[in-house]
Amino acid sequence: MFIHQRPVRFADCDMARIVFFPHFAAYCHEALEALFAGLPGGYARLVGPDDLGIPTVHFSIEFAAPLRYGDTAVIALEVERLGRTSVSIRYRFSRAVDQVVCARARHTIVTTSLRALKPVPVPADLRQLFESHLIGEDAGHHAPGA
Amino acid sequence: MFIHQRPVRFADCDMARIVFFPHFAAYCHEALEALFAGLPGGYARLVGPDDLGIPTVHFSIEFAAPLRYGDTAVIALEVERLGRTSVSIRYRFSRAVDQVVCARARHTIVTTSLRALKPVPVPADLRQLFESHLIGEDAGHHAPGA
Amino acid sequence: MFIHQRPVRFADCDMARIVFFPHFAAYCHEALEALFAGLPGGYARLVGPDDLGIPTVHFSIEFAAPLRYGDTAVIALEVERLGRTSVSIRYRFSRAVDQVVCARARHTIVTTSLRALKPVPVPADLRQLFESHLIGEDAGHHAPGA
Amino acid sequence: MFIHQRPVRFADCDMARIVFFPHFAAYCHEALEALFAGLPGGYARLVGPDDLGIPTVHFSIEFAAPLRYGDTAVIALEVERLGRTSVSIRYRFSRAVDQVVCARARHTIVTTSLRALKPVPVPADLRQLFESHLIGEDAGHHAPGA
Repeated sequence: MFIHQRPVRFADCDMARIVFFPHFAAYCHEALEALFAGLPGGYARLVGPDDLGIPTVHFSIEFAAPLRYGDTAVIALEVERLGRTSVSIRYRFSRAVDQVVCARARHTIVTTSLRALKPVPVPADLRQLFESHLIGEDAGHHAPGA
Repeated sequence: MFIHQRPVRFADCDMARIVFFPHFAAYCHEALEALFAGLPGGYARLVGPDDLGIPTVHFSIEFAAPLRYGDTAVIALEVERLGRTSVSIRYRFSRAVDQVVCARARHTIVTTSLRALKPVPVPADLRQLFESHLIGEDAGHHAPGA
Repeated sequence: MFIHQRPVRFADCDMARIVFFPHFAAYCHEALEALFAGLPGGYARLVGPDDLGIPTVHFSIEFAAPLRYGDTAVIALEVERLGRTSVSIRYRFSRAVDQVVCARARHTIVTTSLRALKPVPVPADLRQLFESHLIGEDAGHHAPGA
Repeated sequence: MFIHQRPVRFADCDMARIVFFPHFAAYCHEALEALFAGLPGGYARLVGPDDLGIPTVHFSIEFAAPLRYGDTAVIALEVERLGRTSVSIRYRFSRAVDQVVCARARHTIVTTSLRALKPVPVPADLRQLFESHLIGEDAGHHAPGA
C-alpha cells in the first residue's frame, strides 16, 4: 500500500464546498505521480525521455462521504493486477481528521509508447515498483492508522 | 437522447495532446448543465434559490479512442434509471469529425438539499426533463448523424 | 473587436459562487482559441503541424464586478499591438444579462517554435487575423449590443 | 518572506510540456492557502465560520523562463502593502533545481464578507500574519538560497 496525503485546495471545491467529483480522478493521477517519484526522474522521465505514457482505459469511483475544504485527503493506493501492458489500481480516499472513507476508485492504465500510441510492456523498474504495492505483498509505506 | 457538442480546449489536453481523463468527468457535468439549461434559470436556479445539488455517488468510464486537440466532442446523454432521489445517466463520447466513439460513461447522482446535505425527491420539473430523455422514450434533440 | 461568448460553468466557480480568478486567464486563452478557429485547422493546426506556440510573457487583469454562476461571459478581444514576434491583446469581460463590465485584461504573447523554444515571426495568416482586430481597424464580428 | 514549494503536476502542464500560464495564478492562491495554514483552522476557517473571502481586484504576472514537468516550483511570497481592507502581495516563482526565476507576480486582494459581498477590515490575526511577511520586516521562513 502506498499512501499519498494532500490538503484539499480551494480550487478543488465547488459551490457546495466539497471536492468537485472530477477532481477525485485528478487526485488519483497525482497519487500515481507521487508513487512514480520513487523512480529516478519520476514520471517526468517516463513521459519525457522514455516516451512512456499511461492512458486510462477504465476508471470507476464510488462515493461514501464528502471531502470538504479544510480536510486533508489520505489516498491509499494498491495494485490489484499487474499485466504485461496494463495495470489495475485501487484507491481508497479517507479524511485525515477522522479516517472516514470518502471514496473508493478502480483504475486501469495501459503502458503506452506516446510516439507510436501503441501499448508496450510495463518497463522493468516500473514493474518492480508496482509489484512492491501489489495487494497482499505490501512493502510498507503505512500511514499511521491507515 | 440529449446531445451536447463542444470543442476540445487547449486547457483540457495533456502532454500527449489528448484530453486528460479527469476532464471527461467534467465534460459529463457540463453536458448535464447543458441539459438543465432547458429549465428556467438552469442549474444556477437549482443550485441557488432551490438549494438543490446533485452529488455523484457513482461514476465509471471506459475509453476506446482518444479525443485530441482540434476535435469537437459530441456527448450523447441518456437517462438509464430515474429513481425517487437518484438518477442514473449514460454518456457516449464521440468525435464530430468521424463519429468514432471515444468513451462511454455511467453516472449516478442523488438530488440533495445542499443546506441539509440530505437526499430529496427529484423535483417535478427536473423529473419531467429526465423522463424526456429516458432510454427508449426519446423526446428528440437528435444531432445530425448521431 | 472579436466577441467570444460562453456560459460560466459550475466547475469555474468557487465556494463564493463566483468565477475563481485564475479561470479568467483560461477564458482569455479560450477566446484566443475561438479567434484562431477563423483559420483553417484553428489553433490545433498551429500548435501541431505548424509547431507554433504562443507562450505568455505578460498577463494582467483588473476586476470590477463578479461573474457568477448562471451568467454568460461576453469576452471582447482587441489587438493592441502587433509586433514582429509578439502580440499584445486586450480583453473586456462583461455579463450578457446586464452588460456590466466585470474585468479588463492585457496579455502579451510571443509566437514561438515549440521544438526550438525560440521566438519566430508571427506567420502571415495569423498576422492578417490579428490585424483585422487591431484597435481602430475593426473588421466586424460585433455581437448585438456589444 | 514565506516560501511554498510544490512539484509541478502533470495536470498543470500543456501540450508544450510547460505549466499552462493560468495555473500560475492558481499556484499563487495555493501559496496564500499555505500561508493561511499558519492560522488555526487555516483558510477553511476564514472562508467558512468567519465568512471571510479574499476576492482578487488586481493580478499581474511576467514570465521569464518556463516551469516544466519534473520541476518543483519554489514560490516566495512577500506582502508589499497592507491596507485597511486590501493587501498587495508579490510572488517570485523559481525552479528548485537551478534557482532560475520563472515568473514574478503582483496580486491585490480585498478582505470581504462573503454574505454581504462588502469589504471588511483585515481581521487582527490575519493582519498579524501578513505583517510578519511585509517586505523589509521579514519573520523568517527562508528557504536555502532563496
